[in-house]
Amino acid sequence: MLKASFYLGNEKIETGSCAPVDPGPGQVQIQVSHVGICGTDLHVVRGKMDHRVTFPQVLGHEMAGTISATGAGAAAWKKGDRVTVMPLDPCGACPACAAGHSHICMKLKFIGIDAPGALQSLWTVPAHTLHRLPENLSLEQGALIEPVAVACHDVRLGEVKGGDYAVVLGGGPIGTLVALVARSRAARVLLSEINPFRLQLARDLGLEAVNPKETDLAGLVAEQTGGAGADVIFEVSGSRAGAEVMTQLARTRGRIVIVAIFAEPPKIDLFRFFWRELRLCGARVYEHQDFEAAIKLAASGALPLDRLISARRPIEEVAQAVHQLEGGGEVMKILIEVGS
Amino acid sequence: MLKASFYLGNEKIETGSCAPVDPGPGQVQIQVSHVGICGTDLHVVRGKMDHRVTFPQVLGHEMAGTISATGAGAAAWKKGDRVTVMPLDPCGACPACAAGHSHICMKLKFIGIDAPGALQSLWTVPAHTLHRLPENLSLEQGALIEPVAVACHDVRLGEVKGGDYAVVLGGGPIGTLVALVARSRAARVLLSEINPFRLQLARDLGLEAVNPKETDLAGLVAEQTGGAGADVIFEVSGSRAGAEVMTQLARTRGRIVIVAIFAEPPKIDLFRFFWRELRLCGARVYEHQDFEAAIKLAASGALPLDRLISARRPIEEVAQAVHQLEGGGEVMKILIEVGS
Repeated sequence: MLKASFYLGNEKIETGSCAPVDPGPGQVQIQVSHVGICGTDLHVVRGKMDHRVTFPQVLGHEMAGTISATGAGAAAWKKGDRVTVMPLDPCGACPACAAGHSHICMKLKFIGIDAPGALQSLWTVPAHTLHRLPENLSLEQGALIEPVAVACHDVRLGEVKGGDYAVVLGGGPIGTLVALVARSRAARVLLSEINPFRLQLARDLGLEAVNPKETDLAGLVAEQTGGAGADVIFEVSGSRAGAEVMTQLARTRGRIVIVAIFAEPPKIDLFRFFWRELRLCGARVYEHQDFEAAIKLAASGALPLDRLISARRPIEEVAQAVHQLEGGGEVMKILIEVGS
Repeated sequence: MLKASFYLGNEKIETGSCAPVDPGPGQVQIQVSHVGICGTDLHVVRGKMDHRVTFPQVLGHEMAGTISATGAGAAAWKKGDRVTVMPLDPCGACPACAAGHSHICMKLKFIGIDAPGALQSLWTVPAHTLHRLPENLSLEQGALIEPVAVACHDVRLGEVKGGDYAVVLGGGPIGTLVALVARSRAARVLLSEINPFRLQLARDLGLEAVNPKETDLAGLVAEQTGGAGADVIFEVSGSRAGAEVMTQLARTRGRIVIVAIFAEPPKIDLFRFFWRELRLCGARVYEHQDFEAAIKLAASGALPLDRLISARRPIEEVAQAVHQLEGGGEVMKILIEVGS
């Protein structure tokens, strides 16, 4: 039976039957296998994005599956192809698109928020969103490519290179992946996280990880860098404490990448930016090259993706998965097995 | 008679006799002609830098003069050479110096604050600070090279290129020079300033200049850029209003350069950095290449430097000059004629 998980508003999620959409020109239909639940999904369910969402809406944008049908003009793809989706649908005409920044199009449709998402048995999407999964990546692993692409984008914008000292503030799924991707680029990485489960998981993955409530982060970084400071800092915590400490950690001309969503503008030490000529950039979603880099890196075996999966649940239990993630504690990534 | 102007602490300035220092190895002695009074000097006289200054101290770091004597190991220079000084004395050994950022050395001595400055008839400085003035620059103009070098540094770090739309927030001497240097790089420039005298001066210099209390800056920039936003913003005002509006003005992947000194950390819209993938960098002082660029640009005649000089005063009137500048109003740059 074809199923879908619907967000109904007011924090309500319900499983129902899937209404498949035949792929039109330039579209493909995918039989969805696995979908990861993301912090953005929690944000939507909490009602924070009700101004963008029309109800009922199918959420989900971290996924892998197999093509079930192709529309006209999608000849590069055929039934049975194993794929993941870069869930961005830019307008192609705004100043951002014209400047080559279509991933941050000023009228961007994020598929899974602004358009129906992947939590359904059969999902129809534009063919331009597709990325092929190599044979040695499982569909479970494929469902993690989207967050790996976020991390690849962040690390690319942070210009991480071999020998850099990188600090990652926040060790949830994205922060941990940023740390792992930075490590794969031969950087020395320090992860800062306050959740004991996530701290331990990071250490189990071979990352140096500390709790900033127990360790003087600025002191440790100074000690480990001969007083110079870190080359690059990733702010993934979205916390005031992170926004405060990030400027203390950076060396002269050090780089700070803002990955987290700050709902409220925090106070930022602009004097330190002046004094040390620090640099900061925001990093949002990804570009196609980041998906390609993510797939290549995952296929190389350099990322312990399976270790990041805390639980698997059937599509009937999306609400429970959301509840579990909101509770925090001993959880990292939850995958929904959509099946059919 | 040899004279000097001394800062005695407690906002007191006194003119006395100069005690010339013979140039040691690697040093030269300069007969100082003109010295500009800078915002940093006001800051020192207000007592904000008493932790760095030993009293009595000779201030002044924007200058031009003629070499009067050379020490051993300064054979590239001879008596009579017309010069200006890049007033930085880095340690050469700290991590910043080791990384090639000696202009923001972690133990930087700023000559004129941490060491005796130019407000004296004969001034002895390290030869590595010297820059030669071409024949077609007057010594008055030469005294403006230091702030022009600040502007060249800011514009370089802002990666301004032909056709860019640049907004400069703050139209004091540095902001006006940033606008003029950006214009010389073929950027379209909009200057924002609230002081009517400075606004009018900017307009007299052919700059597009608006009062942000009268004009909706974000609306104007959006209108003039087809909704895209500005390529680069220079925050030279050091104001909360500037820190707030700067993120609203920038296009996707636009650049913000922090030139001003923010004594208190302002609230910064990090969400906007994330959403538009904005970039920010701090810019402090200058490097030798900026002095060379400043001299070349000034010598080309592209900068109306003479128009920025509001008044000339003898060295006995440094206190009055500081008082006049602190009062704001109808004043831009004041030059002290040191003479001898």
